[in-house]
Amino acid sequence: MNPVTTAPSTRELAHPAREEIRLEGVLHALSDPIRLSVVSDLAAEEQELSCSHFVLPVTKSTTTHHFRVLRESGVIQQVYRGTAKMNGLRRDDLDALFPGLLDSVLAAAAGQAHRLGGS
Amino acid sequence: MNPVTTAPSTRELAHPAREEIRLEGVLHALSDPIRLSVVSDLAAEEQELSCSHFVLPVTKSTTTHHFRVLRESGVIQQVYRGTAKMNGLRRDDLDALFPGLLDSVLAAAAGQAHRLGGS
Repeated sequence: MNPVTTAPSTRELAHPAREEIRLEGVLHALSDPIRLSVVSDLAAEEQELSCSHFVLPVTKSTTTHHFRVLRESGVIQQVYRGTAKMNGLRRDDLDALFPGLLDSVLAAAAGQAHRLGGS
Repeated sequence: MNPVTTAPSTRELAHPAREEIRLEGVLHALSDPIRLSVVSDLAAEEQELSCSHFVLPVTKSTTTHHFRVLRESGVIQQVYRGTAKMNGLRRDDLDALFPGLLDSVLAAAAGQAHRLGGS
């Protein structure tokens, strides 16, 4: 998380190519409430957001874990810009592979949050 | 699995009520390829199917585990009919809670199976 000996801007994080993304991995990534809230925020903002944008009720190492699960499943892309790790939703890839899935999950999450009294 | 001292027809398995079903649990249940194949079969057949209908590449105890995860998350209902445990998709509940979600997951699963060369 805090590279000292290498320039952050040259670090590249591993991502699955579009054809390597698997439905099971995406559903698993979305099956956690913290990760689902991150994805909902990214979808709503429609732009890259830094990790520090998200105020999550978990430790920093758990936060890192959640972002890694999202990245390795192909749900988000993470790139270093200067010292910030920026996160973007891979909507084009997900919509191409699984038409309608992301939107139905986002709508389901919003509907459930409304039913349960917000959050 | 093999009740001896009680009549199978009187055994009732625990299910969440519709309002107790949570999106995260449903997505988790669907995030396993075995469970996803069971749900795809149930959706395609549009009727209750016995556990023995499914020929899965796992042990019987693992099969039982997968069906339990599907039941406890609210994805399927399981009832004993005589000595057979019958499984049905809770489509009405899922469609009411999460419109379009089940169909988009099923379509995504079918599309992925086609891309990967069947299964």
